[in-house]
Amino acid sequence: MIGGGPDSFIGSMHRTAARIDDRYELVASALSSDPERSRAAGVAIGLDASRAYGDGIELLDVEARRADGADVVAIMTPNDTHHRYSAGALERGFDVISDKPIANTLDEALDIWRKSEESRLVFCLTHNYTGYSMVRQARAMVQQGQLGEIRLVHVEYVQGHEAAEDDPDGGELPWRDDPERGGPSLVLGDIGTHAHSLARFITGLEVKEVAAEVGRIAPNRLVDDYAAAMLRFNNGARGSFWVTQAATGVQNDLRIRVSGTLGTVEWAHELPTRLIFRPLDGPVQLRTPNGPGTLPLAARASRIVADHPEGFYAGFATIYADAAEAIAARRSGAKADPLALQFPTATDGVVGVRFVEAAIESSEAGGAWTSARLAGEAGRR
Amino acid sequence: MIGGGPDSFIGSMHRTAARIDDRYELVASALSSDPERSRAAGVAIGLDASRAYGDGIELLDVEARRADGADVVAIMTPNDTHHRYSAGALERGFDVISDKPIANTLDEALDIWRKSEESRLVFCLTHNYTGYSMVRQARAMVQQGQLGEIRLVHVEYVQGHEAAEDDPDGGELPWRDDPERGGPSLVLGDIGTHAHSLARFITGLEVKEVAAEVGRIAPNRLVDDYAAAMLRFNNGARGSFWVTQAATGVQNDLRIRVSGTLGTVEWAHELPTRLIFRPLDGPVQLRTPNGPGTLPLAARASRIVADHPEGFYAGFATIYADAAEAIAARRSGAKADPLALQFPTATDGVVGVRFVEAAIESSEAGGAWTSARLAGEAGRR
Amino acid sequence: MIGGGPDSFIGSMHRTAARIDDRYELVASALSSDPERSRAAGVAIGLDASRAYGDGIELLDVEARRADGADVVAIMTPNDTHHRYSAGALERGFDVISDKPIANTLDEALDIWRKSEESRLVFCLTHNYTGYSMVRQARAMVQQGQLGEIRLVHVEYVQGHEAAEDDPDGGELPWRDDPERGGPSLVLGDIGTHAHSLARFITGLEVKEVAAEVGRIAPNRLVDDYAAAMLRFNNGARGSFWVTQAATGVQNDLRIRVSGTLGTVEWAHELPTRLIFRPLDGPVQLRTPNGPGTLPLAARASRIVADHPEGFYAGFATIYADAAEAIAARRSGAKADPLALQFPTATDGVVGVRFVEAAIESSEAGGAWTSARLAGEAGRR
Amino acid sequence: MIGGGPDSFIGSMHRTAARIDDRYELVASALSSDPERSRAAGVAIGLDASRAYGDGIELLDVEARRADGADVVAIMTPNDTHHRYSAGALERGFDVISDKPIANTLDEALDIWRKSEESRLVFCLTHNYTGYSMVRQARAMVQQGQLGEIRLVHVEYVQGHEAAEDDPDGGELPWRDDPERGGPSLVLGDIGTHAHSLARFITGLEVKEVAAEVGRIAPNRLVDDYAAAMLRFNNGARGSFWVTQAATGVQNDLRIRVSGTLGTVEWAHELPTRLIFRPLDGPVQLRTPNGPGTLPLAARASRIVADHPEGFYAGFATIYADAAEAIAARRSGAKADPLALQFPTATDGVVGVRFVEAAIESSEAGGAWTSARLAGEAGRR
Repeated sequence: MIGGGPDSFIGSMHRTAARIDDRYELVASALSSDPERSRAAGVAIGLDASRAYGDGIELLDVEARRADGADVVAIMTPNDTHHRYSAGALERGFDVISDKPIANTLDEALDIWRKSEESRLVFCLTHNYTGYSMVRQARAMVQQGQLGEIRLVHVEYVQGHEAAEDDPDGGELPWRDDPERGGPSLVLGDIGTHAHSLARFITGLEVKEVAAEVGRIAPNRLVDDYAAAMLRFNNGARGSFWVTQAATGVQNDLRIRVSGTLGTVEWAHELPTRLIFRPLDGPVQLRTPNGPGTLPLAARASRIVADHPEGFYAGFATIYADAAEAIAARRSGAKADPLALQFPTATDGVVGVRFVEAAIESSEAGGAWTSARLAGEAGRR
Repeated sequence: MIGGGPDSFIGSMHRTAARIDDRYELVASALSSDPERSRAAGVAIGLDASRAYGDGIELLDVEARRADGADVVAIMTPNDTHHRYSAGALERGFDVISDKPIANTLDEALDIWRKSEESRLVFCLTHNYTGYSMVRQARAMVQQGQLGEIRLVHVEYVQGHEAAEDDPDGGELPWRDDPERGGPSLVLGDIGTHAHSLARFITGLEVKEVAAEVGRIAPNRLVDDYAAAMLRFNNGARGSFWVTQAATGVQNDLRIRVSGTLGTVEWAHELPTRLIFRPLDGPVQLRTPNGPGTLPLAARASRIVADHPEGFYAGFATIYADAAEAIAARRSGAKADPLALQFPTATDGVVGVRFVEAAIESSEAGGAWTSARLAGEAGRR
Repeated sequence: MIGGGPDSFIGSMHRTAARIDDRYELVASALSSDPERSRAAGVAIGLDASRAYGDGIELLDVEARRADGADVVAIMTPNDTHHRYSAGALERGFDVISDKPIANTLDEALDIWRKSEESRLVFCLTHNYTGYSMVRQARAMVQQGQLGEIRLVHVEYVQGHEAAEDDPDGGELPWRDDPERGGPSLVLGDIGTHAHSLARFITGLEVKEVAAEVGRIAPNRLVDDYAAAMLRFNNGARGSFWVTQAATGVQNDLRIRVSGTLGTVEWAHELPTRLIFRPLDGPVQLRTPNGPGTLPLAARASRIVADHPEGFYAGFATIYADAAEAIAARRSGAKADPLALQFPTATDGVVGVRFVEAAIESSEAGGAWTSARLAGEAGRR
Repeated sequence: MIGGGPDSFIGSMHRTAARIDDRYELVASALSSDPERSRAAGVAIGLDASRAYGDGIELLDVEARRADGADVVAIMTPNDTHHRYSAGALERGFDVISDKPIANTLDEALDIWRKSEESRLVFCLTHNYTGYSMVRQARAMVQQGQLGEIRLVHVEYVQGHEAAEDDPDGGELPWRDDPERGGPSLVLGDIGTHAHSLARFITGLEVKEVAAEVGRIAPNRLVDDYAAAMLRFNNGARGSFWVTQAATGVQNDLRIRVSGTLGTVEWAHELPTRLIFRPLDGPVQLRTPNGPGTLPLAARASRIVADHPEGFYAGFATIYADAAEAIAARRSGAKADPLALQFPTATDGVVGVRFVEAAIESSEAGGAWTSARLAGEAGRR
């Protein structure tokens, strides 16, 4: 584990998600950019001092040489260092689990993507909202054709933690308020890529063109805190996109509605165990974890009996469990369960970074429709 | 009453809304464009045959000459004839209650606006969603400064009745599928103006610029069935706008979220008796009709004791009741209750038509930011 | 109209409900027990002074003799006078619409029932919650066998307006705090009969035996403010019943769940346009007004297009409209629409009063199971 | 771990809950009553063959003698063997985490209670619903007096998995359909004790008397599938109680409403991250995990940032984490965090068994009010 010190929410969350299905053992860490704190923190969470490293690259170097070295590296450092550690890990033969965004720039993202393609190592990007069983139910229903041809998508991710004028993140996570370190558009990198990823995951479509406005609305903000966009998908579907971290008092509201010729599905993170399905004919249906009509992809992500609440950890853990399945299969030469191989990868990461770039370009061009497609080999994947 | 035959939903709804608070008596009608059917329908709903007219202009002419002629004319004809009857009624000295949109073109809308301004007659546009008590609570909270400076608005109005490929409206309301008669963009005239009006009503702001895409997504549609837009308000606030009638299986989902520096309010038509208020500090609150914290503007729109469901009729009736108050005051020379004078007027109608035009212009210009402001005297109101 | 002065919620509600479907005209009133106020109030709401009576019995006497006298009398006086006016009206040949409970004692209730049976006049008891379209959908689904044999019922009606220690109703409606006038158990007469009526209306079953505790929990209450009960229905089904007016801060929460061998339905007054249907097999469904699967009994109670909110007025108006249909049919000799003849009648009133009595008897007998059946001819109906 | 084989939901859930906060290591198991399968299952989940025992008592005997033997034993065997293993574990000096109910009979329950009292070992009963952060918020609000004196409680736990006539549990968990093994009233032992425990946990009150009906309503059931009850609490508060496993199509619906003189709280397991608070004065509030107003007891149970969904695992894990804190403190002699010492114990288990007994006694006595108090030393605790 590189990044994710003992006081960070994201570090604790990754560790917990990894533990839930008991397919990981934490053996080495570089938890902080400060070598002293990094080593102390590793020991504090129970690691052997010899593997509580002071630096992430040191961890990669030493573990790569150990006979019993780590198999997979999980990266949850500030956004601007994702590339450094992901590329470094792939170069040294580690499978990688990386927090999103994959990188701050497209060049970095493509570099990671190329390295993961060439090495055939596993690269798992923790777009954790794709791990909820009802999100997977939606995806599986689309895959089965239950919604028909997809025509309309609205996705929004609204938070309020950046709404207060006197509450920059400066204290705890200063890199978030630094445009260099947090990426070209913090709100897009932070939650916009989640919204974009969720729409792609459920629909199986790509955003072909985007017209957007990206900006900052809260006083004295140094980084973007809202983005509105209109979307054109590669099959002709149309969409609407709205993300902000400046909606005062809103805690964490991610929701999506996808309509096809045969029906509409609606999902909201606030009540993640309900997928609303509105068929063209017949009454509205509520789909629930392990309830009637659950498809295999959703059942696989649902650990518990019908309609016991599944929360944030369960969804996050599913991503970890899927990656474990892929990693174990790669290492053993066995065939992985195909249902496990639908987690976000470097390809998704690259597409997400290109979407962020395209949205910014469009915004700077006065909302002009801008292609979000990737050029070159990545675009031909 | 001009338009709104016995089989039309909208006619029955207007009549019911007018009855609820018992401030109207229906005395004359021209219910259909077919003179024979029009006269028969008037008699059928109980009018004296001499006042069951065959034609709307005939109604206006004759009633204007009667000593006991109608005071106010309610218009609910196809969109392309709104101007004809509204202008005709104002010219003859009638107060007017008109279904939305005020007219299909800006010139027509401005003509109505000018006539209502000059005559000082009452012109009430039935943007009925502004009549719900909790929508009025939201407006009153904004007016009182409880939300602080408004910064972010998301409004969406999603329906599915145009989703089926083989279900043009042709049968019942053929004018809806005729671009000439239904207006330049049916989805915008039909429900887009409601969404736009709701955002303006609650925030008290104007849309200054819009970047939009307007189009048709359902196969074989002759008229628009979706519109996405990004909004810039006159105080610098930003917004997102999403309307469609092609979302398969969705019935009638209008919702809005407005965030200011001090809090956010959320309202959804599905459960119209709940206004969610998320203050900057302190727990989320649910405001309910006549519940604690109800402000006078909301209390006035709430006829019943705390938290008995108020539905579509109640909201619609509020618009009628407010107009009645204004009309009675005008006629008697008394001062109307200021709380009653917040119903939508010709000004709102003109602004709405300009918004539709601007959205279409932006869409045709590839999503370019387009001014939604009115030129000339209307813009200086 | 007898009772329901201009300041009373219930009076205004009855008048509005009667207006909505335009099948009633208010021609005479005795709005208050004080003759002066009664006459003034009648004039104030627009009646001719000659028919703005000072007393209810005077109204009945005079109107019965007029050639153009009232057809139907609506009664919304304090509970202890319901019998006086209902019996008086039936004796003089008026159809009657009465607020619930039908009477305070079983003897009075039976007297009204007998008079309505013998006269074959219409007697409609405004258990208005049975007028919601989704409640009628539930009833129709049970009638069609979609739920199979009914086995389990839970109904609760929870309010909080009697929770505050220093807030007796004394001021506005002093009779409510007078055990003589408000009836043997105010909470049961007030809302318990609604809950009981709702369970009977949906299931078509009768409560055969009840074991109950009825009492007062708020300090200084003179009348009952809570009742818990266990129910045994006549087909062997079992139930649970919970009503209170002392649940601090709760506004008006009526909800019911009915389970049969083939499925469960759930309805809550808070969101009255949703009926949740949980079939034995298959996903949970949401039934909505005029949505897919709407049965004729529900469609008849739904005035508007799919999924526009229907509120308290619409439900109440349905009861009035049904009574109008029955009254018009009786007077014209025509056959009434059978779907209109499912409104609560004197029989329902008598059964309700007996249920209240039985619950009190059980409570006084330490919760012993007590028969709720009616003796004599009423029991053989 | 005794019980909880690899295919059992409850076993997997306990293991996951124990892992989440990383305070347990699974070192020994007796996972099945069949010795061969038990040993194989232990090896299959990764234990050393020498500690994958064939029998629970063998596990206790051997582990008690090992220098590195287990510290705490988790028991999730069929209900009729809980006492055997809990008593055995306490006798041998193990701390115990036991699935509910603590035992099938009061004598057994009291024996466990006495052993835990005398040994001062930790005994934690996994009434896991008390682990949700918003349930703890409710308890803490009551403890702080925010609800005033508690007056009214309604709790219900409704499931449908026993509704189908042809679906006895016989296959997977045959002991559940055996009255001897499943306990005197399966529905009460299974979910009734959860409902009872939840009411006690939030209110801090005890049920003094109960009047109940307990029975079986689904055809061919051998064990109880519903129970209705009326409750009298030790401070005079009144309550209503409704549990069933025969509500067709209902998945898992546990909900509670508690009213005091100053306010009401409502919680439903379906959306466990919302606690509705209705104060005597002021608008309804929604309390959310780590949202404004979160009290320390709730914050301690909430692992994640504001309003990310917390599910079943998180709540269950809180019970495990609290027990870990107590066990670690006991063993180290340190003082445990008092906020961790509010998990259910043997006392709660004994009270629960007595409640089940009293409900059955009342039901058999025709619903007579029956004391639920404990006699002897347990009653004086």
